[in-house]
Order: sequence, then structure tokens, then C-alpha cells
Amino acid sequence: MIIKAIVAYDGTHYKGWQTQKGKVCVQETIEKAVTKIHKGEYKRIVGSGRTDANVHASGQVFHFETSLNIPPDSWVRALNSALPKDIRIQQVVHQKDDFHARFSAKQKRYDYLVTTDKENPFIQNYMGKVYGEFSLEKMKSCAELFVGTHDFTSFCSADVEPLKSKIKTIRRLEIIQEGNVYRFIFEGNGFLRYMVRMLAGTIIQVGLSKITVDDAQRMLEGKDKHQCPYKAEACGLYLVNVEY
Amino acid sequence: MIIKAIVAYDGTHYKGWQTQKGKVCVQETIEKAVTKIHKGEYKRIVGSGRTDANVHASGQVFHFETSLNIPPDSWVRALNSALPKDIRIQQVVHQKDDFHARFSAKQKRYDYLVTTDKENPFIQNYMGKVYGEFSLEKMKSCAELFVGTHDFTSFCSADVEPLKSKIKTIRRLEIIQEGNVYRFIFEGNGFLRYMVRMLAGTIIQVGLSKITVDDAQRMLEGKDKHQCPYKAEACGLYLVNVEY
Repeated sequence: MIIKAIVAYDGTHYKGWQTQKGKVCVQETIEKAVTKIHKGEYKRIVGSGRTDANVHASGQVFHFETSLNIPPDSWVRALNSALPKDIRIQQVVHQKDDFHARFSAKQKRYDYLVTTDKENPFIQNYMGKVYGEFSLEKMKSCAELFVGTHDFTSFCSADVEPLKSKIKTIRRLEIIQEGNVYRFIFEGNGFLRYMVRMLAGTIIQVGLSKITVDDAQRMLEGKDKHQCPYKAEACGLYLVNVEY
Repeated sequence: MIIKAIVAYDGTHYKGWQTQKGKVCVQETIEKAVTKIHKGEYKRIVGSGRTDANVHASGQVFHFETSLNIPPDSWVRALNSALPKDIRIQQVVHQKDDFHARFSAKQKRYDYLVTTDKENPFIQNYMGKVYGEFSLEKMKSCAELFVGTHDFTSFCSADVEPLKSKIKTIRRLEIIQEGNVYRFIFEGNGFLRYMVRMLAGTIIQVGLSKITVDDAQRMLEGKDKHQCPYKAEACGLYLVNVEY
């Protein structure tokens, strides 16, 4: 049987989703909990994708196989009692055998939060911070550039495999002001490593009038992985949901 | 010259306000920053009162003496650049020589936050959590009991000095529901050690129907430091402001 789980986590104290030797990662922490429920039989989990160190999730999805016959609500309780408080299972669903958290994903939503409230001690690990005059109108103009299907070579990590397609579709990129917090909503069929943070970082630079919308357009058209020197702070990024 | 400063801090990683040997406290952390600005000349600061380990503040007040002639805004910037990100100075004011952060305080406001959203990983260090049916009406009835001038012997730490007066006046105790978060607002002329957390803990027990308003009234009338076995989690408590 395949179990699909939706999990929220505060990424502050984790080196990202993916297991790395000697560092505490979210995936490994959840695998320990799943393994514990299977009385020590090692269980690998498969996430919808990686999140970087200090990145958060309100709706990450993962799956694993099990022969245990446990109702969904009991899975939620069992997993949460075996997990640390900063990783909380939100929902468990029994799935057909062809469900795969990564390959079956159709769309993802990431939100980026940035604030001008720089002297608030409570948001330090939860939002990007900006200093100076910040224009919502300029950011909205820049965001429009990125909506649609584009080659995002200029806005991804230099580590992304050369042969992997850099063409992605952003269906929605909305910027909403909530007091002194700005929420950037990214919805698309997939995102390259660092892509959301580099797009957010570029939009923020436009908002601060450090660069123009034309500069951003030239970066996009450059299709060169060395084009974008901006990457917004990891702690402002949230994986909000994954659609199947 | 006396400097009055308003400071906000995330208490998660501190053992409270007061300096304790071998533990990192907020007061000591700020004293290091003030001392640094005085080129290493040790500077003691005086807070409006202590906060316990993991308790937060959005408006704690402290004072210190200085011979440095620095404008208030420059003090804010200098202190914040010498402080960790989870302690942020909000405002600095030059005061007359008779100002004392503790003795001149006339009223304080503490807020206690508690949520029924127990599987949210982002609030674990910032709110109390409750499990079960929770009645706002019952809590409001209980809160009314505590408003006014009372002997709060039943609702303070057993460590409070026996000769110290336990009579305090609570001018306001309001409970506001904000979605699945309940905010208890306490305003009064002073609070004994653990008093806000013990009152909040008692109100929460009434809200959960574990005890009745009559039980709470008997506890208050008992004037016995062993009466109240309830103390709400430290991480839900915020020192919001101090009036002079």
C-alpha cells in the first residue's frame, strides 16, 4: 500500500529536505519516525522535491510503501508523536500503487515572504528583510515578465544538470502586500533549484530600484546561468502545496 | 545621562531576562552590546522586571547610565548592530536622572497566546497549545474573577519572599479570539513571579471544562501558595509594554 502524507515544517533547524551525511535533514528525521512505527524496519520516503536549508513548508508531500493496515487519522497521530514539534504531519491519504510524490506532481506553489519590518525579532527566521524604499508597483511590473513559459537558465543554480530542460511554466506570480509584509505567490509546473529565490531576489532588487524591469528582462533573455547575482534569503521561502 | 530603551526579544534561546551563571540571558547579552559601545567599560543595565526562560517581549524597558553624547536614533542603530537578531531595540529616549526602569514603572501589559492549532510547526515556541473543546464564554467568566484588587498569594511562585505584598490590581483582563488563537490581555500595576502564567493556566483549565469558575474562585480566596497547580507554558507569554 502507498501512503501519501502532507507535512508542514519549520526549516530553521534543518539542513534542507534531502539527507546529507552528518547534517540533520527533514527527510531523514521523518524516515526515523516512519521506521519506528515499522518496529525498526528501514523505510525510505520520497518527497515531491527538495527544499534547501532553512526553507519552510506548509504543504510538502511525500510517500512511502507499507504493509501496515492503519487508518489515515491514526497514521497522523502515530507519526506526529514520533516526530519533533517543528515537523507536523497535516494529513495522510491511502493511494493507489501508481502514486509517486515526485513524478505524479502536476503543479507546485511556493510563497516568498519579505518584510520592511527589519527590527522585529520574531520574524528573523521566517521572512526575507529589506532596507529602504520599496515599490509594490515596480515589483508587480517585474513579476509580469516571468509569468508564462520561459527558459529560466538565468535563474537557477549553476549545479543544475546541463542536459536538464530549463523551460518551465509559471502560471501565477502574484504579489500581495499585507501591512509591512509582501507575499510573492509562485505557481507553476516545476521549479529549478534556487529558481524561486533568484526570481524573488530579482523582483526585490527592482522593488528597491537597484535595477530596472528592463535589466530583469535582459537577464531572462540572456539564458545564461551566470546572469542573476541575486538570491533571496532561504528563510523567507515556503513550499505551500503540491497538486496531483 | 540616563538612557531608557524599549526592546523586543524572541526569548526562545534565552534562559530569561536575568543574568544567571553559565546560562545565556537577555540582560547579559544586552550588557555586552552596551559595554562594547562604551569601548569595553562595563555597563550594567536595569530592566523593568524579569522575564522567565522562553518568555518573549515586544516592549520590555531597561535603563543605563552613560557619559556618551549620542542621539537616540544612533543609539538604536549602534545597539542593534551589536546585538543578535533575536534581540532588537525599538526605541531609545534620553531621560532625567530620576528615571528608573523598575521603580518608576506604573503599569505593565502582558499578553498570553494560546492556540487550538496544535499541529502547526511554526507556533511551537510562540504560543501555548490546548487539546480539546475550548469555551471562550467560560474563560471570560473566569477572567472577570481576577479583575480588581486581590491578594494573589494562590497564584505566584512559592519562591516569592514571604514578606512581599501579594496584593495586586489587575485593571484589565480581556480575552480575544483571533481565529484559532486566543489572546489574554493582562494590564496591572505589577505582577508576582509566575502570576500571569498561573492565572492563564487556570483560565485555560476552565476553558477546557477541567475545573469550574467556582473552583477558580475558591483558589483565589484560599490565599495559599499551594492552591494553584496550573502554570501555562512560558513560550506563550509576552511582555507587551511598561508604562511610566
